[in-house]
Amino acid sequence: MITVSIDAMGGDHGPAVVIPGAAKSLERHPELRFVFFGQQDQVMPVLDRHEKLKAASRFEHCEVSVRMDDKPSQALRNGRWKSSMWKAIEAVKNGEADVCVSAGNTGALMAMSKFCLRTMAAIERPAIAAIWPTLRGESIVLDVGATIGADARQLVDFSVMGAAMARALIEVKRPTVGLLNVGVEEIKGQEEVKEAGRMLREADLPALDYHGFVEGDDLGKGTVDVVVTEGFSGNIALKTAEGTAKQIAEYLRAAMSRTVMARIGYLLARGAFRRLRDKMDPRKVNGGVFLGLNGIVIKSHGGTDDEGFAAAIDVGYDMVRNALLQKIETDLKNFHGKHPENPSDKAAASGNPE
Amino acid sequence: MITVSIDAMGGDHGPAVVIPGAAKSLERHPELRFVFFGQQDQVMPVLDRHEKLKAASRFEHCEVSVRMDDKPSQALRNGRWKSSMWKAIEAVKNGEADVCVSAGNTGALMAMSKFCLRTMAAIERPAIAAIWPTLRGESIVLDVGATIGADARQLVDFSVMGAAMARALIEVKRPTVGLLNVGVEEIKGQEEVKEAGRMLREADLPALDYHGFVEGDDLGKGTVDVVVTEGFSGNIALKTAEGTAKQIAEYLRAAMSRTVMARIGYLLARGAFRRLRDKMDPRKVNGGVFLGLNGIVIKSHGGTDDEGFAAAIDVGYDMVRNALLQKIETDLKNFHGKHPENPSDKAAASGNPE
Repeated sequence: MITVSIDAMGGDHGPAVVIPGAAKSLERHPELRFVFFGQQDQVMPVLDRHEKLKAASRFEHCEVSVRMDDKPSQALRNGRWKSSMWKAIEAVKNGEADVCVSAGNTGALMAMSKFCLRTMAAIERPAIAAIWPTLRGESIVLDVGATIGADARQLVDFSVMGAAMARALIEVKRPTVGLLNVGVEEIKGQEEVKEAGRMLREADLPALDYHGFVEGDDLGKGTVDVVVTEGFSGNIALKTAEGTAKQIAEYLRAAMSRTVMARIGYLLARGAFRRLRDKMDPRKVNGGVFLGLNGIVIKSHGGTDDEGFAAAIDVGYDMVRNALLQKIETDLKNFHGKHPENPSDKAAASGNPE
Repeated sequence: MITVSIDAMGGDHGPAVVIPGAAKSLERHPELRFVFFGQQDQVMPVLDRHEKLKAASRFEHCEVSVRMDDKPSQALRNGRWKSSMWKAIEAVKNGEADVCVSAGNTGALMAMSKFCLRTMAAIERPAIAAIWPTLRGESIVLDVGATIGADARQLVDFSVMGAAMARALIEVKRPTVGLLNVGVEEIKGQEEVKEAGRMLREADLPALDYHGFVEGDDLGKGTVDVVVTEGFSGNIALKTAEGTAKQIAEYLRAAMSRTVMARIGYLLARGAFRRLRDKMDPRKVNGGVFLGLNGIVIKSHGGTDDEGFAAAIDVGYDMVRNALLQKIETDLKNFHGKHPENPSDKAAASGNPE
């Protein structure tokens, strides 16, 4: 049995999408159990229409909901201890739930998750990992926007955590890891990326196979299982790819409706177009995973539908079933056992009274 | 008459692509004149096959060629004063040519261009501007990889130069300019982007209309005419978009050849597919423009064919005909006239004996 705590008020559509999404995921994974947090008058009427789901759920009323445009500081000020988002995260901390899923706003969800769950002992900064469809299957890309900038040590931590997630999600034994960089040689800057490369090469970890630098076009190719970068460029890469996919879909639509012949061709090939649409469906890879916290939190796209929200729950289910947290903890211990001299261990040590 | 100096040895295929490319561009713009630099035994046999082009050209033999994998420092050491790349750039400096086009390696071309042409007085760093196809037409994105990192002042300079290029290329009177950023509110870091935004808003320049921040998915939408960012994230955005386009083209090819019905549909709609391929053709927007130097240099993709190389020459032709350099100089003067207190003017002033 795996229990998922859900912020039923999160996302652009709240319970109208969240509840049917959970029902879909329950169909696929009957061992799931749910705890929903939200406003009774909005959640219960929808939940009442899903008997099976209702039987597998507990509901808890919360007066306060975090809005999609709340700033993280506002959300913390108004929603801490009592909002549906906070309660859903807290259920993971209390051990009532194994994973939390929310379609609420990213900044607020990360701020609350950090405040409530805290970062793992060996980790300075959490990251958001995205699942990226590639020509080879799926890769993991992080950080796609938890924080801006990362030093070498943080990039190495992201690599270790991303590789653990790859082992949990796509079941490769020793995932390949690449550091995102630009191709021009001898360019100044990005010393932290070069330093992270040196650290990964020297560490020669059993849990990951360090590939070297990769560039933007390696994302779609699926050159490596895990692509690591700091949150600014990661977020820009993610949104640029989403934008390009939409742009091409738009071109395709326009081209196929321009002439009668094209329309007939489209009808004959509609099975093929359906396959293409499936391949490009952003709902299928919905679910950013917060890594580096003492608990798993999954962020669903705010604008997704029930199918997309179900996919986010599926990701959470996979992460729990494949023991993501334990994998990360073991790998970090392995790495820091080998590298006791690294900065944050020192920082932790100096926290003791002298 | 507009004269283009060309590094005939640049690119993966050298004269075999460069010369036919120039011939194509000459067909479209009969007032073009060319100066080719390269190895006689490789260039002349190809040039001899293009009579019209030969009649509109001068050729100069150069013993040395910069290789595609030379590091910038190597290229400068071995190729300065004498390589075909250097000579082509020097022709712009000497006034023999109005613009230089090369498919040689980016790092070497930028290093030599900086060394030979020098940056404009008011500019700290040159940038590479790419032409980006969007749902609205074309936008300009810079910097896509000249240097990594940029402070607020440099981002503002990029904005001014990018807007001048937009006026030269897509003929809008007051181009809209957006600063690339991530959507999460209150995230730490990127102070320089925020500061650049403040500076642009306050300056309220007649030459550009500052729109505010944009995100990665605004690139494909064409939300603004000019998107400004530093070279690391710009390069990653550019290559990510290229990679995503290739990935989707691959999905489409696979889907359309899977069943007989799909193949028939494809045949009927092949006019539409041709239009789509045209839209997505990377050769059509080939040509990165080096901005901020005392002369115009156009970088063509190294792996392009004659059609792509012709497009890069066309970009150079447009830039000269529409007086890009003069536009940039006027706009920079306007801006710095209003903001005499800015750092690099001070730095320039403090260069005088006190």
